[in-house]
Amino acid sequence: MSTEICPLEWRYGSKEMRKLFTREEIMKRRLEVEVAIAYGLAKAGIVEEWVPEKIKEAVHKVEVSRVDELEAKLGHDIMALATALAEKSGEAGKYVHLGATSYDIVDTAWSLIIRDALKIIEEKTIKVISKLIEYSKKYKNTIMVGRTHGQHAVPITLGFKFANYVYEFTRSLERIHEMEKRLIKSKISGAVGNMASWKDKGLIVEGEASRILELKPHEISTQIAPRDGFAELASNIAILGSQLDRLALEVRELMRPEIGELAEGVGGRVGSSTMPQKTNPVTSEKICGLAKVLRSMVIVALENIPLWHERDLTNSSSERFLISHTILTLDEMLDSMMEVLENLIVNVDNMKRNLEITKGTIMSENVLMKLVEKGMSRTEAHEILREITRKALLEKIEFKDALIQDNRIMKLLKKEEIEELLKPENYLGETEKLIERTIRYAEETISKITTK
Amino acid sequence: MSTEICPLEWRYGSKEMRKLFTREEIMKRRLEVEVAIAYGLAKAGIVEEWVPEKIKEAVHKVEVSRVDELEAKLGHDIMALATALAEKSGEAGKYVHLGATSYDIVDTAWSLIIRDALKIIEEKTIKVISKLIEYSKKYKNTIMVGRTHGQHAVPITLGFKFANYVYEFTRSLERIHEMEKRLIKSKISGAVGNMASWKDKGLIVEGEASRILELKPHEISTQIAPRDGFAELASNIAILGSQLDRLALEVRELMRPEIGELAEGVGGRVGSSTMPQKTNPVTSEKICGLAKVLRSMVIVALENIPLWHERDLTNSSSERFLISHTILTLDEMLDSMMEVLENLIVNVDNMKRNLEITKGTIMSENVLMKLVEKGMSRTEAHEILREITRKALLEKIEFKDALIQDNRIMKLLKKEEIEELLKPENYLGETEKLIERTIRYAEETISKITTK
Amino acid sequence: MSTEICPLEWRYGSKEMRKLFTREEIMKRRLEVEVAIAYGLAKAGIVEEWVPEKIKEAVHKVEVSRVDELEAKLGHDIMALATALAEKSGEAGKYVHLGATSYDIVDTAWSLIIRDALKIIEEKTIKVISKLIEYSKKYKNTIMVGRTHGQHAVPITLGFKFANYVYEFTRSLERIHEMEKRLIKSKISGAVGNMASWKDKGLIVEGEASRILELKPHEISTQIAPRDGFAELASNIAILGSQLDRLALEVRELMRPEIGELAEGVGGRVGSSTMPQKTNPVTSEKICGLAKVLRSMVIVALENIPLWHERDLTNSSSERFLISHTILTLDEMLDSMMEVLENLIVNVDNMKRNLEITKGTIMSENVLMKLVEKGMSRTEAHEILREITRKALLEKIEFKDALIQDNRIMKLLKKEEIEELLKPENYLGETEKLIERTIRYAEETISKITTK
Amino acid sequence: MSTEICPLEWRYGSKEMRKLFTREEIMKRRLEVEVAIAYGLAKAGIVEEWVPEKIKEAVHKVEVSRVDELEAKLGHDIMALATALAEKSGEAGKYVHLGATSYDIVDTAWSLIIRDALKIIEEKTIKVISKLIEYSKKYKNTIMVGRTHGQHAVPITLGFKFANYVYEFTRSLERIHEMEKRLIKSKISGAVGNMASWKDKGLIVEGEASRILELKPHEISTQIAPRDGFAELASNIAILGSQLDRLALEVRELMRPEIGELAEGVGGRVGSSTMPQKTNPVTSEKICGLAKVLRSMVIVALENIPLWHERDLTNSSSERFLISHTILTLDEMLDSMMEVLENLIVNVDNMKRNLEITKGTIMSENVLMKLVEKGMSRTEAHEILREITRKALLEKIEFKDALIQDNRIMKLLKKEEIEELLKPENYLGETEKLIERTIRYAEETISKITTK
Repeated sequence: MSTEICPLEWRYGSKEMRKLFTREEIMKRRLEVEVAIAYGLAKAGIVEEWVPEKIKEAVHKVEVSRVDELEAKLGHDIMALATALAEKSGEAGKYVHLGATSYDIVDTAWSLIIRDALKIIEEKTIKVISKLIEYSKKYKNTIMVGRTHGQHAVPITLGFKFANYVYEFTRSLERIHEMEKRLIKSKISGAVGNMASWKDKGLIVEGEASRILELKPHEISTQIAPRDGFAELASNIAILGSQLDRLALEVRELMRPEIGELAEGVGGRVGSSTMPQKTNPVTSEKICGLAKVLRSMVIVALENIPLWHERDLTNSSSERFLISHTILTLDEMLDSMMEVLENLIVNVDNMKRNLEITKGTIMSENVLMKLVEKGMSRTEAHEILREITRKALLEKIEFKDALIQDNRIMKLLKKEEIEELLKPENYLGETEKLIERTIRYAEETISKITTK
Repeated sequence: MSTEICPLEWRYGSKEMRKLFTREEIMKRRLEVEVAIAYGLAKAGIVEEWVPEKIKEAVHKVEVSRVDELEAKLGHDIMALATALAEKSGEAGKYVHLGATSYDIVDTAWSLIIRDALKIIEEKTIKVISKLIEYSKKYKNTIMVGRTHGQHAVPITLGFKFANYVYEFTRSLERIHEMEKRLIKSKISGAVGNMASWKDKGLIVEGEASRILELKPHEISTQIAPRDGFAELASNIAILGSQLDRLALEVRELMRPEIGELAEGVGGRVGSSTMPQKTNPVTSEKICGLAKVLRSMVIVALENIPLWHERDLTNSSSERFLISHTILTLDEMLDSMMEVLENLIVNVDNMKRNLEITKGTIMSENVLMKLVEKGMSRTEAHEILREITRKALLEKIEFKDALIQDNRIMKLLKKEEIEELLKPENYLGETEKLIERTIRYAEETISKITTK
Repeated sequence: MSTEICPLEWRYGSKEMRKLFTREEIMKRRLEVEVAIAYGLAKAGIVEEWVPEKIKEAVHKVEVSRVDELEAKLGHDIMALATALAEKSGEAGKYVHLGATSYDIVDTAWSLIIRDALKIIEEKTIKVISKLIEYSKKYKNTIMVGRTHGQHAVPITLGFKFANYVYEFTRSLERIHEMEKRLIKSKISGAVGNMASWKDKGLIVEGEASRILELKPHEISTQIAPRDGFAELASNIAILGSQLDRLALEVRELMRPEIGELAEGVGGRVGSSTMPQKTNPVTSEKICGLAKVLRSMVIVALENIPLWHERDLTNSSSERFLISHTILTLDEMLDSMMEVLENLIVNVDNMKRNLEITKGTIMSENVLMKLVEKGMSRTEAHEILREITRKALLEKIEFKDALIQDNRIMKLLKKEEIEELLKPENYLGETEKLIERTIRYAEETISKITTK
Repeated sequence: MSTEICPLEWRYGSKEMRKLFTREEIMKRRLEVEVAIAYGLAKAGIVEEWVPEKIKEAVHKVEVSRVDELEAKLGHDIMALATALAEKSGEAGKYVHLGATSYDIVDTAWSLIIRDALKIIEEKTIKVISKLIEYSKKYKNTIMVGRTHGQHAVPITLGFKFANYVYEFTRSLERIHEMEKRLIKSKISGAVGNMASWKDKGLIVEGEASRILELKPHEISTQIAPRDGFAELASNIAILGSQLDRLALEVRELMRPEIGELAEGVGGRVGSSTMPQKTNPVTSEKICGLAKVLRSMVIVALENIPLWHERDLTNSSSERFLISHTILTLDEMLDSMMEVLENLIVNVDNMKRNLEITKGTIMSENVLMKLVEKGMSRTEAHEILREITRKALLEKIEFKDALIQDNRIMKLLKKEEIEELLKPENYLGETEKLIERTIRYAEETISKITTK
């Protein structure tokens, strides 16, 4: 039977990431928190030492179906979970969830899940960056058209282009990593956050439970963890998603038949159901499409910050979408980007061909700089060259010839000089050093993150 | 097993609405379009008359699992569907999808699905409006505090409050209904929309297929239907959703223990896992929470309008979320609102009590109007009354007494006049006529829609 | 001095539209409403007949500087306005704003302003549509590449492309026009909307004031007009803006030097400060950029719907941006689009050249249809042609030659037939009729709007 | 004359912050960058040492009117600026902007402006936090109702409530501060970012210019700085804005007449133009309203990330709104919040009164904990207490009496014990230590930022 509705159930997201967000897995992580709190209670002397042991053993006996049954009856998901756990805990059952509030469980479990999820996200981002570093080096001298406004500007190298993505993605990696200290925290502080139910033992309960879960606690909280953390998460995911969008857009544009510089490698995939000749950049298009979903979800996360007093529940329903949908969508995009990069076709011949279609005018900035060096003013040189390049393009003659026909130019430059000025390989500036500088930054950032 | 991720699979959305958006059902509607096109081809003389008959019979034999298999191989969902259908169509198989493009199928099937979905949405909206009309009448004379800025303004009646929601929801109903003529259309025009594959028979194919599906065709299209239609859908859903949000917010606020004028009726539901006394407006909170999701999704729909040339694919992945998620979320909200309304507790005593807590100053506008009638200027009257009401509130004396102590007032008004002025029931203006006018508008709108 | 901050002050928006949204003009329209209400009061017998006459005369004497002074003192803009008007109205002064609430003035004035603004928007949209109709006719036979996924699909004509924009923009025009009846209404109903201050004369006041202002009243309201109207406005503006974005994107893409089919006509404009050869599609880029602003503002408008009870003030500050910024931004975009269209350069030679760069494979769908006609199955034909087109593209041979080399093809087709099949002009389907159908729809819609 | 349109010109934003974003000031900062680049050129030996000196002197002679004139002619704002500067630089004029691209100027100037703006934002945020720290201490023992879902939960103290805002705002402060290293950078790398116009001297030009401006350069860039930086800015502003929204919402809710715990202090401000008794939380409402604008603008910033290749111009028009509008709006909100806090009225009596309106049931969690301590199971205790609290609320009797009437309770608790359990001051848990912990975190964070 195929009764799924949401594409996350069957279409988007890796198996490993999807697993983290199933109802079953979320339940397991919540039970893990219940157990940790039981240990906290024991440490604080509120319950005896055998109590958490018993509760821990019971965890494996809790069944989703029983929790569902109880929720249908009680109308409260965490109360149902605690009851189901208590039912299996024997004598210890009466201490399950003691003094805790639902969101001690929900929010702390989110931290456990998100910690695992971000580990995957970071690994995949590093994998993408590493592939881009490889390409930055490999293509550092592969000259191609640099484009601004979609128009030909001056030459760059393909390695330089990739290095810019290395930089941009590494910035996201750094940003996501720095966020973790604010987001991945325990929230174990009872009903309105003042730990009143544990009296003067609250900090011990929180401390021990957090120690077990390897989390640091929020300094303070209301009934729930502050929602700016989730907004930061959604923003950072949308930013990385939009950067992936940018690279996917690059591939889509450069794969146009008229340009033909890059292409998605294709297997047996059908391009069009009616046009047999078509090979479409569908993976890149999927990435661009999903980025729209990520951008929109930031609004949900931001609207969840201004809750009432010690909490209201309006974050709950929307976060059931927000957290799983943003992370799984990004996960799909990272995998897709890796697939695009690994199968990327680079057409160096077309890069060369395209460099020439503007008749050499792509080198006009170089001529401008030389004219200034020879004493002409920037403004005058700009004016003259604008005239000459227009002429070359309109009359479809080579820029070189147009330059040579112009007295104002020939007063200052020799023909050989002009020829040298028009070679793209002579006009790459600090390309190599910039690529190196960028790779250094990326590698240092990655190293900081992976060796922490 | 509980491996679902998205709350639409198990938590939100009615059974009837969810059914429309399962993979299986979507596949069925797409097959329906393939069949209609086959009839179109026959009508145009492109295929023989037995062909569509055969294809129609084959529809029931197509299995999702086979389509999945083919998609895994072909990397194209509609090509997979067409192939699976062809496999079951015998001799007619070779004419399946002939000259059509994928989005002839996808977009026309969306129209079929959305037509059914909006029928449900409209019915549920009308049900909510009807309940609100009932309450507008029932409570037309139930006096309560009118609040602006959260502060007490002047008295209103509960019926008047409900009538405003009657008006607002009816505006949405009208808006959604007017949209249908732009949104629910067939798109049967081949690869780039010019029907070239059917040569000069394209309009016949389109006409006959549309007739069968009871749809009017788009006047023209690229490869896909214009995306402004989906943006209008998402906007109108978000508008209605935000209106439901407003009513749910009303209930949540008026259910505060200090106010206690309205309350969600509760069954055996547990309010809090740790605070036994609590009854929370959780259904209203869910409505407010889900409205955030609807607002955010408008961004996705708007970003899908500027596609490249005759189409790009970046709408595809995001629409897999957009259409099902917005409609099902709204569906859940409408059902929840109906549940809230049907079980709504109205506490008339508290309404009375609250009218009095500002010591009668809630009637100050009435006094102001009378003072002007007696010849004082608006500005002066406003100034004097501001002074007196402040005094009453600060010194905790009755407004009436504060008025009587003031010479400037007593020069113009008698004590009995003041007493009359301070009765809320004397200050309801055109309340009844406005309620009637609104109900008339609502009933006319509903009647126009249901009898079309 | 150049102390402006917002680009609407000096950079974006036409002079005529900007005028509607200056502080001064807004004040004038609000005074107009105060006067109309005064006439309403007279009609209802609440004030004498000379009162509105006096107030009307005073309007021209009110000065912004005095209003500012009063607002600084009173902290309330409409109270300041009413007081300034009263000061100039002599004896009638004490009846200014009598029984009205601030948003009677604010919201009704918005209706007056938006009515004028939408008139301009509609005129400009019609102008753009008319130019596109002209181009649809002019280029109805100008063959060019139809592109999907950025890849070459099948041929279309430039007129067909333009006709799609005719359709899309006309849909927006229709949508905006239909919205007016919900948005452009008077709101004259006092403090919480029940007209209590005018007792049983409220409907007369509302009726007469509305008659004078040529507006229909909202059926009912709280203290303010329902905010779904502004959300609908913002959505419809964002939709039209995103459609303009799509056309501007079309120009930008087709102006790439490798494609060169369309171009923004340029005057003496400098393309780049450092690259003299550049001519950039900067007007189209501006349109695409501003569309982002329009999309975002929909969120503001939607969030303004769920206000508290009879109103809260949180719509006020955000609407100071929302209304002026969305309308003026759209106004700039429409003017810019008209400029782009009027100066558009169409390069028919490049269109022809591009049709050929995929070696004739752009015609493969036509071959597919013929093969099916000759008895091959769709699936088989698709498979074979995919193979042949790949071969042609990889080996850089003409599609025609690749077809001729293939036995499976030659069994069914003669060489002459193939040659006919590969002529784009033979494969335009219903292009002309679709263009005609679209123009008819557009002209009927325009006619309905302009002759109302 | 009052021809302004945007409220930032006259209504919102402090004088000091507004100054940073005027056209004139932006021009000055751009000229500052032109001068720094000239020094970079000299350092690299591209121009002689007297050149930057001359250009620096010329800066003060450039007039906005001349730049406007030139832009009207050239259609390019930075080209106009460079030309105007060149005109005033005498012999050095021909070296102005040499080898630079427009966005070297625009983006680096943004860094200078944003550096100054964020300094103000951080100072104001620290001021707000400091006031909240003061209040956290002052009211650490002021007991009030803790509210979840708008319902009474368990008691908290007002100091605890404020401490939560201390925590949340400090998180934003930390986040904004950490962002600076990614955002406030120089971008001095020429046309497409490879410094080609400066050949192998590019890094020297960049290094020297950056040193003068006290900025670190981006590791690499396209023609423009990566746009994720602006998206991070917009997100962080929207997050802080939404937190301010939350605190303002707190004030608005607690100022309801039925609650009356907090109030905006008011001067002579008029509450309503027609209801003289009203005092409205208008400053808090303004804060909530403006937060909507901030949330929406994140979409603009995110959409600006996926630009084409080495850049397209579609970020330009939207950033003319984005940067000034978000920062100035936040600035207004921070000033307004400070005003609200400084004039905040705390009504301790009403806090006490409200604690009692739920008949003591607000203490039920404490009773639950004691019952469990005495051996009852959590679930059973929860069930029994739910029953008793409902009874108390329905029958309007004191919770204490309802408990005493219940045998199940009296088997375990004595009357005196119950009395102790019902005192809020006995049920504040770790309140004080949590406040201290939070203040410590805030002070350390502030100290790190201010002493850097």
